[in-house]
Amino acid sequence: MIYFTPGPAQLYPTVEKHLQTALTQQVFSQSHRSQAFKDLYKEADTGLRELFQLPQDFAIYFTGSATEIWERSLQNLTATHSYHLVNGSFSQKYLDHANWLGRNAQQLKVPFGQGFDVNAIDIPQETELLALTQNETSSGVCMPVQDIHALRAKYPEPLLSVDMVSGAPFAALDFNQVDMAFFSVQKGFGLPAGLGVWLVNERCRNKAAALEGTQYTGGHYSIKSLHEQYQQFQTPCTPNVLGIYLLAQVVEDMLAKGIDTIRQETQEKAQALYGFLEESSLFAPFVQHAAHRSPTVIVADVLEKPAAEVISALKKQGLVVGSGYGAFKDKQIRIANFPAVSPAEVAQLIAALKQL
Amino acid sequence: MIYFTPGPAQLYPTVEKHLQTALTQQVFSQSHRSQAFKDLYKEADTGLRELFQLPQDFAIYFTGSATEIWERSLQNLTATHSYHLVNGSFSQKYLDHANWLGRNAQQLKVPFGQGFDVNAIDIPQETELLALTQNETSSGVCMPVQDIHALRAKYPEPLLSVDMVSGAPFAALDFNQVDMAFFSVQKGFGLPAGLGVWLVNERCRNKAAALEGTQYTGGHYSIKSLHEQYQQFQTPCTPNVLGIYLLAQVVEDMLAKGIDTIRQETQEKAQALYGFLEESSLFAPFVQHAAHRSPTVIVADVLEKPAAEVISALKKQGLVVGSGYGAFKDKQIRIANFPAVSPAEVAQLIAALKQL
Repeated sequence: MIYFTPGPAQLYPTVEKHLQTALTQQVFSQSHRSQAFKDLYKEADTGLRELFQLPQDFAIYFTGSATEIWERSLQNLTATHSYHLVNGSFSQKYLDHANWLGRNAQQLKVPFGQGFDVNAIDIPQETELLALTQNETSSGVCMPVQDIHALRAKYPEPLLSVDMVSGAPFAALDFNQVDMAFFSVQKGFGLPAGLGVWLVNERCRNKAAALEGTQYTGGHYSIKSLHEQYQQFQTPCTPNVLGIYLLAQVVEDMLAKGIDTIRQETQEKAQALYGFLEESSLFAPFVQHAAHRSPTVIVADVLEKPAAEVISALKKQGLVVGSGYGAFKDKQIRIANFPAVSPAEVAQLIAALKQL
Repeated sequence: MIYFTPGPAQLYPTVEKHLQTALTQQVFSQSHRSQAFKDLYKEADTGLRELFQLPQDFAIYFTGSATEIWERSLQNLTATHSYHLVNGSFSQKYLDHANWLGRNAQQLKVPFGQGFDVNAIDIPQETELLALTQNETSSGVCMPVQDIHALRAKYPEPLLSVDMVSGAPFAALDFNQVDMAFFSVQKGFGLPAGLGVWLVNERCRNKAAALEGTQYTGGHYSIKSLHEQYQQFQTPCTPNVLGIYLLAQVVEDMLAKGIDTIRQETQEKAQALYGFLEESSLFAPFVQHAAHRSPTVIVADVLEKPAAEVISALKKQGLVVGSGYGAFKDKQIRIANFPAVSPAEVAQLIAALKQL
C-alpha cells in the first residue's frame, strides 16, 4: 500500500533500514541519561538546525505530541491573552486549549476552506501569544510563509507561534521572524507517531522566565525545565528515544537529498495534483484561493458520488487516501503530499484517479 | 550486550519480530482514527486486563510517559490535598508535581534505602489522593503488595494511586484494592521508551467529574477527555501507535508464557542475585530489610572500589548494569531483573560478578 494519508502517513523510505540498525545496535536499551543518548539528541538538534536554518538562540525540545505543545506553549507563554487565527479544526483546538486554561482567548475566524488576508487581521495590543496554523490539516488551507512574515512585520510585539504540524519541513519559514514553531513527526517526516518537536527562541524563554513562579507553567514540561535539560541534551523525563533516533536519521537523509530539492519536488507533485483536480469532472479543489492551497495536504471535493466509494476503489489498487475531516468526511478526500511519497507514486495516484 | 539497566532496559525477546511484522503490515501508516487502530487499542486493553486481572470498572489510558501521569493524576484527582509516601527520587518527584501544581502536599519521608511500616503511616483525613511508589527505581526498595492492601484497608477513603513503573507486571497487586496505577513500557515490559499506561477505576472518574469545571484538569489529557475517547478505543491526540502495538503483542507473549511463570521466574532470579550479594565480599545488598528488597530492581553497594570500575569491567563482558542513582552513582550498581532477562542471563551476570 502507498499511504497518501495526512498522518500517520507513508513512512519515509529509509525508516525500516534505520530501525533495523537501531535494533542491531540496541539503541532502545541505552539509558536516556547516557552519553550515547546525549549524542543522539545533539545529532537530531544539529540536523534540525540545518534543515530549518534555525537562528542560534533557538532551542529544540521534545514532547509526546504536537497537541501537548498547544497546551505547554500557552502555559508557558501567556498569563491572560492569546489570539488565534482559526480556519479549521486544528487551529480551533489550539484555541480550545487556551479556553481550557482559562485564558482570554480571542480569535479571527474564517470559514472552513478559507485562509487569511493579512491586511484584515487586527490583533489587540494586549496579545501575548499570536497563534497561527501554517497548514490546516483539516481543510487543506495553508498560510503562505510570506504572509506569516508580513504578519510579524505588522505585529512585532506578541510572541508568534506557528503550528507547522503538516507543513514541516516543506514550509520555508524564516525563523528570524517567528518565536516558536512545532510539528509532530508522523506527517512530513514520515515517522511513526508519538513525538512532538518544539522549536523555541530566546524571547519565549524570557517570557516563560517572567511567568515562572506566578502561575503553573507545565511542571516537568515547563520551558524552564525543558531548557535546563536541553542544555545538556537531556530531557525532563524518559522520552520517545526511538522517535528521536529515527528523526535524527531521516533529517540526515533529507539533508543529503537537499531541502531545496525536497521543496521543489513537493511543489511539482502539488502542481500535478491540483492540475488534475482542476481538469477533472469528478473532483474539484476544495480551497478556492490558489495562494491558500496547501502543497502538503490537498483536499478535493468529490462530485457526483460518495467519497467513500473513491477511497475504496483506490484502496483496491493499493493507494490509500484520507477521508474528509469531520463534517466533510463523505464529501471530500485528503491527499497528503509529504516527502515520503515520490513523484512516480503521485503520478500513479493521478492515473488511478483519472480512471474513476 | 545484555542490558540489566533499570529502564530503558533489555528489549523483550520478541520485540524485533513484532516490529518487523508491523513494518510489513504498515501498521505505523494507519490512521489513529481507523478501525484498525481501534482494534489494536482493544487488543492491548484485553491483554492488560487479563494480565493485571483488572476489575470491570477499570479503564486503560495511554500518555507520553509515566511522569505525565504524576501530573495528570494530580490535576484530575485533587483539588487541594495529596499525601505522598516518599522513599526515593521517584516518589519525591510525584510530590514535586503536587507542589508545582500548588497542592497542599503532605508526606511521610523515610531515608533512602528504607521502606514503610504500614502501622506507622498516619494519613490526614482531608487527603484526596494517597500516592505511593510500589517499586522505587532509585533505591531498590519495594512496598510489598500486601502492605499496599493493608494500607487500603486502614484508609479506604482517599483515592489510592500506585506508581508501579518498575514493578509491573511482576507486582501482583489486587486492583480491587487500589484506584489507579501506572507504569511506563521501557521497564518490565521491555519495550522502547515513550509510552505511559494509566489504569483508572470508576472512583477516580467520579472524582475527576466532580472537579471538572472547577479547575484545570489537563485539557486533552483530562480523565474526562481520555475516557470519552477510550469508550471507542480512541485517544485524544495521535498516540505512540508503535508503542501501543508492541505493548499489545508483548502482553500476549507474556500471557502465553503465563504471568505466574513470569513472577516465579522473577522471584528465583532475584533470590539468586540477592543470595550472591549476601555472600559476596565486594558487594552488599543496599536495602537492609529483606521484605523491602525489590525483586525487580536490585541495588548493591560496591565495597572497596568505585562502582564505575565494576560497571566498566562488566561492560567488557557484554553485561550492562546501571549505576547508582544520584548521589549514589559512585557507590552502587543497580541491576534490573525484568522479564526480558532470562534465568540463564542472570546466572551469567552472577558468574561475572563473582570473578570481579
